[in-house]
Amino acid sequence: MENKKTDFSEWYNEIIDIAGLSDKRYLIKGMNVWLPYGLKIMQSIDSLLRDYSEDGGINEVSFPVLISREQLEVEFEHVKGFENEIYWVTRGGTTPLDIDLALRPTSEAAMYTMFPLWIRSHTDLPFRIFQIVSVYRYETKHTRSFIRVREIHFYEAHTAHKDFEDAELQMENYLKIMDKLSEDLCISFSMDIRPEWDKFPGAMYSVAFDTPMPGSRSLQIGTIHEYGENFARNYGIRYLDDEGNMKFVSQTTFGLSERLLAAVIGIHGDDKGLILPYKLAPVQVIIVPIQGDEYDKILEYSTKIQDILKSIGVRCRIDERDYTPGYKYNDWEMKGVPLRIEIGRREVEDNTVTISMRTRKKKIKISLDELNNIYSYLRDVNQDIKKHASEFYNDNRVFIDNIENINEEKMVTAYWCGNKECSDRIEALSEKTALGIVRNDNEAGPCIVCGKPGKVSAFSRTY
Amino acid sequence: MENKKTDFSEWYNEIIDIAGLSDKRYLIKGMNVWLPYGLKIMQSIDSLLRDYSEDGGINEVSFPVLISREQLEVEFEHVKGFENEIYWVTRGGTTPLDIDLALRPTSEAAMYTMFPLWIRSHTDLPFRIFQIVSVYRYETKHTRSFIRVREIHFYEAHTAHKDFEDAELQMENYLKIMDKLSEDLCISFSMDIRPEWDKFPGAMYSVAFDTPMPGSRSLQIGTIHEYGENFARNYGIRYLDDEGNMKFVSQTTFGLSERLLAAVIGIHGDDKGLILPYKLAPVQVIIVPIQGDEYDKILEYSTKIQDILKSIGVRCRIDERDYTPGYKYNDWEMKGVPLRIEIGRREVEDNTVTISMRTRKKKIKISLDELNNIYSYLRDVNQDIKKHASEFYNDNRVFIDNIENINEEKMVTAYWCGNKECSDRIEALSEKTALGIVRNDNEAGPCIVCGKPGKVSAFSRTY
Repeated sequence: MENKKTDFSEWYNEIIDIAGLSDKRYLIKGMNVWLPYGLKIMQSIDSLLRDYSEDGGINEVSFPVLISREQLEVEFEHVKGFENEIYWVTRGGTTPLDIDLALRPTSEAAMYTMFPLWIRSHTDLPFRIFQIVSVYRYETKHTRSFIRVREIHFYEAHTAHKDFEDAELQMENYLKIMDKLSEDLCISFSMDIRPEWDKFPGAMYSVAFDTPMPGSRSLQIGTIHEYGENFARNYGIRYLDDEGNMKFVSQTTFGLSERLLAAVIGIHGDDKGLILPYKLAPVQVIIVPIQGDEYDKILEYSTKIQDILKSIGVRCRIDERDYTPGYKYNDWEMKGVPLRIEIGRREVEDNTVTISMRTRKKKIKISLDELNNIYSYLRDVNQDIKKHASEFYNDNRVFIDNIENINEEKMVTAYWCGNKECSDRIEALSEKTALGIVRNDNEAGPCIVCGKPGKVSAFSRTY
Repeated sequence: MENKKTDFSEWYNEIIDIAGLSDKRYLIKGMNVWLPYGLKIMQSIDSLLRDYSEDGGINEVSFPVLISREQLEVEFEHVKGFENEIYWVTRGGTTPLDIDLALRPTSEAAMYTMFPLWIRSHTDLPFRIFQIVSVYRYETKHTRSFIRVREIHFYEAHTAHKDFEDAELQMENYLKIMDKLSEDLCISFSMDIRPEWDKFPGAMYSVAFDTPMPGSRSLQIGTIHEYGENFARNYGIRYLDDEGNMKFVSQTTFGLSERLLAAVIGIHGDDKGLILPYKLAPVQVIIVPIQGDEYDKILEYSTKIQDILKSIGVRCRIDERDYTPGYKYNDWEMKGVPLRIEIGRREVEDNTVTISMRTRKKKIKISLDELNNIYSYLRDVNQDIKKHASEFYNDNRVFIDNIENINEEKMVTAYWCGNKECSDRIEALSEKTALGIVRNDNEAGPCIVCGKPGKVSAFSRTY
């Protein structure tokens, strides 16, 4: 393995390759193949998102991938924001199409042409749907697995509400989902209100979830957008309120992507490889039977343990491959498996198991009866991951009160007046862009550039 | 509801609409929106397929949607077979692309350009992957929800083997998966070896799973293909055997689609609506508390029952909506829910529950202790569905020994010599096409058209 600290970029590419997460050798650059192990981790994230969305009253749908130019052009700001990034289908078979069709870059235009058919009355509101699909961007920048790709694995929730206040409540509800998810993924993030010039095309305002990553750049891992009536007015999404008046709905969205996986890989991994929070791990417990005398009994005992673990819902597997134990240990550590159970003759005789945690050196010996407690060890691993990630976050997101420190190789926060001239100055000095005013941080002080009244804001080079 | 027998086509469209399966009012014809209830049923089918595939050693991957013209043109027969149906991306942003990119109509060309990177030695074989993705066909024919659409929800398995014999074993393994799936879906099917002129473009031979549907047409619900070395030779997929020789792999595929859902809807449904096998039902048991005196206690008791059912893995829900019991019964029957539990004052007093099965008129009263047996009632519903479907299959797939009976409004089987002239004659007389020689039926007899030696073959008008 590459050394993560000295060359994160190389380390990141190498671990994606050797852990079998994704293959970027596909003939179309920036469109990668999801390999079984990587896909399983992503599907675990999807599965958490499905649960949390449904708990929040958001129902899953799936829209067509194609959006006609007419649909897209309904909201001018929106289409303008994407026009350089859209893949256009212009021919069906050998026939030129009457109207060009876009591969969805995001699904506002697809969904909002249907909303007027579904939303008629206040009893239809709030209306909440989500989908997990691929979206497409004709990226001209350098691509990087899970971070900047041309086919993006995407979660998008879209809601419509009777008024702005109700839409704002939904924004809070998104944060609850994000909190649960970040707990599962063991990731901390900054909530930054994107500057006007960097908000989602068509939005009233956008809040992004930014997390510092190794490589001295931050990664936007998700966004929520308040649309107000912007899209509703253009797409004609109206309802009859309880007093018989036609009103426009207020809308919001919540977007997440495979960048969540990028953050898990980048933030938690070490020089041995991946480290996976247990809810994401395709294999949560790997059982390694140690070859030697009475191997039959060892295998039998291993199977018994596997059966017990499976019966309590643990994803586990026995590694019977013809390699040395050391090789297997390294291999599963590289794959980020939270717990390893080693079974030798002694364990069979004692009715015990020896547990190794991916995050600690010391092994633990427990009796077979205690195997029901396995989740507490899985949670311990998560605690270790979280602690490490939180330290990383705090080390890599620092407040500065002097512009001379702007070149710290970190995400920085500082007072900022909100004006573009000042953030342009910061960018010129440091290549750091304004991520925006930090939400929920009401500290005020003089702008680090011009000295006018400012608020705590985040700046970083970004992936 | 429309009457299913008198106008199946109308009935089919209506049930898809009122059960909330899919919305076909999307602006691009033939590209429909998956609604929550329909999507959940399809995801249950996907989930069964994932389990059976992994049990069969087939691992899930996910390939990019775009395939370059170069990749596609490697196998000439293959691309020729699809050239009239491909959606072509020709522009990225405002820039014409150097090479046109196809929206995958199927993934051979995408996958097989990667196979040479993954398959080097006999130890890499057998190599087995599958994916569940959308595929795209620029259909010019009349579209119909889940049956003929332009964006198709698709399962495709692709395997590579050391030789033809091993590939043939895989073909048998696909049948095992298909058997398990058809058991879950309660569907019978005919296995028909497609005639040369109707096999998959590039295949050595194709076997299709055809099932008679209402409307006097059969539906192809799946296919398996033996490619032999056809693709391997074109894509250069070779391996070093254990004697040090380079050899081409033999390949197979297995394809299924949302047509499985079409078959479930069309074959099982009745004039009340859907009837869903329990493994597919988003709600397996609906609990209807009867409003009246002491409604609090009834609700409390209903919740207790829901908790018990959820604890044994049953998908259930309490319908607390402000409608009459009769309305709710009709509504959930329309949605195809296998079991309904009615809770009134009597049930609370007796510690009983009253169960209604979607497939039977008589209600059953059981004690609370017996609730653990709920799966036996769910299985009973499946048995009823299966019996009904099997009768439908046998009634609608008949052997004829006289060409005068060719116009039976059914799928027919008859001896056929295998020549196109004879099947063309049948088609001219009846609009029935040759589905092919029936696999596993070795009866021989004189061709129903020309009298030469023939084998049992299937003919039908098709969806």
